[in-house]
Amino acid sequence: MPELRKDPITSRWVIISTERRKRPSAFRLERHEPAGDGGVCPFCEGNEHYTPREILSYRRNGGPPNGPGWDVRVVPNRFPALQVEGDLDRQGEGLFDRMNGIGAHEVIIETPDHQASMATMPAAQVERVLWAFRERMLDLKNDRRLRYILIFKNHGAAAGASLEHSHSQLIALPVVPRQLRDEIAGAREHFQRKERCIFCDILRQELDSRIRVISENVDFVALSPYAPRFPFEMWVLPRRHGSNYEDAPRHEYASLARMLKEVLQRMNRALESPAFNLIIHSAPFTEAAGEFYHWHLEIIPKLTRVAGFEWGTGLHLNPTSPEEAAEVLREVQV
Amino acid sequence: MPELRKDPITSRWVIISTERRKRPSAFRLERHEPAGDGGVCPFCEGNEHYTPREILSYRRNGGPPNGPGWDVRVVPNRFPALQVEGDLDRQGEGLFDRMNGIGAHEVIIETPDHQASMATMPAAQVERVLWAFRERMLDLKNDRRLRYILIFKNHGAAAGASLEHSHSQLIALPVVPRQLRDEIAGAREHFQRKERCIFCDILRQELDSRIRVISENVDFVALSPYAPRFPFEMWVLPRRHGSNYEDAPRHEYASLARMLKEVLQRMNRALESPAFNLIIHSAPFTEAAGEFYHWHLEIIPKLTRVAGFEWGTGLHLNPTSPEEAAEVLREVQV
Repeated sequence: MPELRKDPITSRWVIISTERRKRPSAFRLERHEPAGDGGVCPFCEGNEHYTPREILSYRRNGGPPNGPGWDVRVVPNRFPALQVEGDLDRQGEGLFDRMNGIGAHEVIIETPDHQASMATMPAAQVERVLWAFRERMLDLKNDRRLRYILIFKNHGAAAGASLEHSHSQLIALPVVPRQLRDEIAGAREHFQRKERCIFCDILRQELDSRIRVISENVDFVALSPYAPRFPFEMWVLPRRHGSNYEDAPRHEYASLARMLKEVLQRMNRALESPAFNLIIHSAPFTEAAGEFYHWHLEIIPKLTRVAGFEWGTGLHLNPTSPEEAAEVLREVQV
Repeated sequence: MPELRKDPITSRWVIISTERRKRPSAFRLERHEPAGDGGVCPFCEGNEHYTPREILSYRRNGGPPNGPGWDVRVVPNRFPALQVEGDLDRQGEGLFDRMNGIGAHEVIIETPDHQASMATMPAAQVERVLWAFRERMLDLKNDRRLRYILIFKNHGAAAGASLEHSHSQLIALPVVPRQLRDEIAGAREHFQRKERCIFCDILRQELDSRIRVISENVDFVALSPYAPRFPFEMWVLPRRHGSNYEDAPRHEYASLARMLKEVLQRMNRALESPAFNLIIHSAPFTEAAGEFYHWHLEIIPKLTRVAGFEWGTGLHLNPTSPEEAAEVLREVQV
């Protein structure tokens, strides 16, 4: 059973997940997981028996689960960081605090086509993927042990992907993670002072100056954030205020699919198709964050190495200004 | 001039350092800096003219600066993240906050020998390096614009090193970074409740159970922390309570040099000489942290990739328990 442990000094939680155990000698390879059996891609159509049994699928002709004929498939991760079975058990150990690793770890297989990526698949397919994210979030919200769901994508080995077939991951957690607590705290404080959402205020200021805007459509704005941790970091924000990804009106997922494809195409053109991480930021289940939190997407191209300075300070060193990045991304032809 | 910008939502500072600018096409190479001119190592003895003029050196025969005959040399970084010249200027920009990037960025060249590393050089040489760290910290503490000094080491390309010749870096900052603020806050809270240092309490508990202790000598204890972010993360703590690295009694630097060599040798033996980061955690200048903060070293072997999950949550996923790591590191022959 995985375990969550709290650093007693900083109160930072860490997941110790020995299900993902490696021998010391295997660590030289960095995080690497077997690509199915005998080099067969477990995410390709026809290879459904290489994955655990599916949780959700969208099927063109309504065929039975766990066989071919699907557009999107959601399965449990074979090497889960957290496990769904068991009761949440919190324990002390002298100075230290831990809880057992209850949660969920799922894989969203985005396409039966091994060659496709979010940038190249049809917008309608991206929309189906975004809809599957929503369905899984709504389902897992019913589990009272869980407090937060993270949906993210590691694309390319340098960004942590172990399989190249296009997929995203969902991890549901029994704690609200620090990154979200900081965002929630900052947004709440702004709301208490101004009675306005800070993300809505940022959207207004950015659309006014335009120097960090990359692209926009009727529902979404893509921009380089004012204080980006990474070169060419991009945020995609809905214009309409809403705290939770899964509560957006139906037409917004189609609109987001088009925007997402476009910004990924811009990034690929400008930066020679880099490895990247994509992360959905949505309010925790347990917070009444409706008025002040504003869900959004963050995209981080993997262009620089994080090193001693970043680990020692929590501060990031970024060699590219967001104004420069936005200009490059805005002007590239797609 | 580099710039510090504050993310308005999380209050996280970021250094935008376009002195370290890259063209978009150059980003594919990850952080990479030129290795001197014509492939010559700028840190080797005899190549002193490839670096900016030295700030400090220890010389065997008292020769003139900026020539051969040194054991340790400290020079400004050629591609500084922060600049020492200028007045600290804080500005708003609508919702946003920034300040100019005043600070210092120095390189400590640890040996004239291109092949040596901290694990292989004589303990007396490691001690000279540790003493140079102390001297630079004491000097920079006089600069009232600065609030924190980070000393760190990136060893190996995978850990962010751009030159292989053994060196460390010093960055002095006009802000107290988040990582330190969190440590200070946690340690202060513990002290207010118990009137004891939390690090001293952890040392007592760990020396009692011994399951996470890697090694110890008369002045220092090396251990795997209870909630490690990374597999085989190691902390080296002084037994004697003290908040600031630069204020340790002289004999502790010799003792630390021996302990540091030993734990690096253990790590190299157990993990096939991985790339790693080494970070000194010491109290900020501006905090009266004497009673409750306890300086220490953190060593992070670079074995796994940080990916979307970590960037999206601030939470770390670690496949190795610290008990397992400590056992491996304790039992390896050195």
